Amino acid sequence: MATNENIFPVSVIGLGNMGLAIAAAYLKAGYPTTVWNRSKGKGERLAAEGATVADTHAEALAASSVAVVCLSTYHVVHELLEPLAGELAGKVLINLTSGTPEEARRTAEWAAKHNIAYLDGAIMAIPPMIGAPEALIFYGGTKAVFDTYEPMLKVLGGSTTYLSNDPGVPLLYDLALLTMMYGAWHGHIHAHAMLKTGGISAAEFLPYADSWLRYLITPLLTDPNGAKALDDENYTTDVSNMNTNKLALDHIIRTSAEMDINADWLTPIYTLAAQKVEEGYGADAFTRIIEGMTSKK
Amino acid sequence: MATNENIFPVSVIGLGNMGLAIAAAYLKAGYPTTVWNRSKGKGERLAAEGATVADTHAEALAASSVAVVCLSTYHVVHELLEPLAGELAGKVLINLTSGTPEEARRTAEWAAKHNIAYLDGAIMAIPPMIGAPEALIFYGGTKAVFDTYEPMLKVLGGSTTYLSNDPGVPLLYDLALLTMMYGAWHGHIHAHAMLKTGGISAAEFLPYADSWLRYLITPLLTDPNGAKALDDENYTTDVSNMNTNKLALDHIIRTSAEMDINADWLTPIYTLAAQKVEEGYGADAFTRIIEGMTSKK
Ligand SMILES: NC(=O)c1ccc[n+]([C@@H]2O[C@H](COP(=O)([O-])OP(=O)(O)OC[C@H]3O[C@@H](n4cnc5c(N)ncnc54)[C@H](OP(=O)(O)O)[C@@H]3O)[C@@H](O)[C@H]2O)c1
Ligand SMILES: NC(=O)c1ccc[n+]([C@@H]2O[C@H](COP(=O)([O-])OP(=O)(O)OC[C@H]3O[C@@H](n4cnc5c(N)ncnc54)[C@H](OP(=O)(O)O)[C@@H]3O)[C@@H](O)[C@H]2O)c1
Repeated sequence: MATNENIFPVSVIGLGNMGLAIAAAYLKAGYPTTVWNRSKGKGERLAAEGATVADTHAEALAASSVAVVCLSTYHVVHELLEPLAGELAGKVLINLTSGTPEEARRTAEWAAKHNIAYLDGAIMAIPPMIGAPEALIFYGGTKAVFDTYEPMLKVLGGSTTYLSNDPGVPLLYDLALLTMMYGAWHGHIHAHAMLKTGGISAAEFLPYADSWLRYLITPLLTDPNGAKALDDENYTTDVSNMNTNKLALDHIIRTSAEMDINADWLTPIYTLAAQKVEEGYGADAFTRIIEGMTSKK
Repeated sequence: MATNENIFPVSVIGLGNMGLAIAAAYLKAGYPTTVWNRSKGKGERLAAEGATVADTHAEALAASSVAVVCLSTYHVVHELLEPLAGELAGKVLINLTSGTPEEARRTAEWAAKHNIAYLDGAIMAIPPMIGAPEALIFYGGTKAVFDTYEPMLKVLGGSTTYLSNDPGVPLLYDLALLTMMYGAWHGHIHAHAMLKTGGISAAEFLPYADSWLRYLITPLLTDPNGAKALDDENYTTDVSNMNTNKLALDHIIRTSAEMDINADWLTPIYTLAAQKVEEGYGADAFTRIIEGMTSKK
C-alpha cells in the first residue's frame, strides 16, 4: 500500500485484458482511478469497485495528472493522444503499450516536444500477475520521472526495473523475452499436435513437460557458463553437438510430415544447423547457429 | 547401488558424448563394462576407470548378454548389428539412439524376428545428468524385459519410466519434448542476436531470462487448466488474445529485419496467428493456432 503522499489520481486509457488488470490494481491500492475504453461496458466491474468511467478519453486524461496508457499499438496511442498534446503538456504519460524500440523512441520524442513527461514501459507479465512481487515491468526514459513515480509504478509489479534513459531499451528486452516465449509456446503447441496423433492428452503429458522445463530447458538457458560462452563466442561442447541437434531436428520434421503436421517453422532452424555441419562445425555446440542468423559481423 | 544379483556384464556400443556418460555410469555402479567406439581413443579415460575396450563391436557384444547402444542414427545401429543378428539371439538389446517412432518400431520387429529381447529408450537428459534422480528416460517394448532389467536401467536415471508395449511411444514423447526444447532454445539464441545489436550481453540479460522462464514460461506451459483447455479444444481467454500475440510476433519480425537478423522461423507462426484473426478468432487464445497446423480433424 502506497503512503498517503504517494496517492494521487491516475487515469487508465484502454481496458483490454491488460488495461483492466492495471486499473484494478490502482483501485485496490487506493488511487482515485478514472478509466476509459473505446468499446463501452468494459469498465462496469471497475465502476462497481469505485472507478470513475469517463465518456471520452479527453475527459479521462483531464481527470488526473498521471495517465497510464495500455492499447493495442503505438498507432492507436498516437491516434488518440496527438490531438490532445496541448492538454497533456506538464502531465505525466506512462505508456505500457507493446511495440518496437523505434516506436517507443518516436513517441518519447513527440512527448518531449510537447513538454509531456514520458516513460515507456514493457510489461513482462500476464494480467493475473499484475501486482505480484514477481511481475517484471521494464521502464526507460527520464530517470527523474521514474524515481518520482516509482512507488506508483510498483503497484503494478514488484520487479519494476528502470533500464535506460533510452526509451527504446525496454521494448528491446521485451522483444527478446517474447521471442523466447513464442519459441517455447509454439514448440509446446506443436508437441501437442504430435502427441494427439498418438492419442496422448495434454493432461497425460503434463508431468513430463513439467520435469523437462524445470530440469532441462530452464537450466540449459540460465546456466551462467552458457551465457559466458555466448558472450565469448565459445562454441565448444562435450554435451550435445551440432550433428546430434541437426539429426534431431530432421527427426521432428520428418515425423511431423508423416503426421500431416505443419513444421514449417523448424525448417529455417534445421537449415542453420545443417549449414554449420556443412562448414565443418558438426562437433560444436548448437549455439553456433547464431553466426548464421545475421550477415553483420 | 545395485544389489549383487543385479550386477552382470554390460556392453556399451558408441562412445559419443552420451555413450561416454552411459558407460561411466555403469562403471561407477560396479557393472563389468565393455565398451566400443568406431573412432579409437574415446574409451581411454573409461579404461583407466576399469572398462574393457573391445577392438570390434562384435567382440564387445560377445562380452555381455546385455548391450546398451547409443549411436547417431538407427541407420548406423542397423549397419552395425544386422550382420551380428545370429550372435545377438537370446541376448538383450537396449537401444538409446534417437530417431523416429517408425524407426523404433522397425528395429523392434527386426529384433523380434531374430529372438533378441529389445527395449527402445529415449533419454530426456544431457550427458552430465546421466545417473541423477531427475534424469528422465522413457522405455517402450516388452514389459517383462523392462521389469527384469529395471534396476540396471535405473543406473542411468532416477526417472526411468516405462511407457508402452509399443516401442515407438518413447520416441513420440521424445520428439514432443525436443520440439519444446528447440523452440525455447532457438528463441533464446534469436533473443541474444537481437540484444547484441543493443550492446546487451547474455550475462547482463541472464537474471531476466531466468525470471521469465520461472515465473512466466514454465507456469504458462504447465498449468493444469491450460492442459485441460487444450484437451477440451477450449480457446477462450481473458489473459492474452490472438490479436495481441499476432501483433507481438509482427513486432519481433519487423524489428529483426531492421537489425538484419534472420527471423524466418517466426513467419510460419505469425501466419498461423494471422489466419485465425482473419477467421474471426482475434479475441481467442493463441493456442487456437493448433487448428491450422494439420489438415486432419
Ligand atoms: N495480455 C497480455 O498478456 C499482455 C502482456 C504484456 C503486454 N501486453 C500489451 O498490452 C497492450 C494491450 O494488450 P491487451 O492484452 O489488453 O489487448 P486487448 O485485450 O486486445 O485490448 C486492446 C485494447 O486496445 C484498444 N484499442 C484497439 N484499437 C483501438 C482504437 N483504434 N481506438 C481505441 N482503442 C483501441 C481496445 O479497445 P476495444 O476494447 O474498444 O477494442 C482495448 O482497450 C498490448 O500492447 C499488449 O501487447 C499484454
Ligand atoms: N548428447 C545429448 O545431449 C543427447 C541427449 C539425448 C539423446 N541423445 C542421443 O544419443 C545418441 C548419441 O548422441 P551423442 O550426443 O553421443 O552423439 P555424438 O557425440 O555425435 O556421438 C555419435 C556416436 O555415433 C557413432 N557413429 C556415428 N556414425 C557411425 C558409424 N557410421 N559407424 C559407427 N559409429 C558411428 C560415433 O562414433 P565416432 O566417435 O567414431 O564418430 C559416436 O560414438 C543420439 O541418437 C542422440 O540423439 C543425445
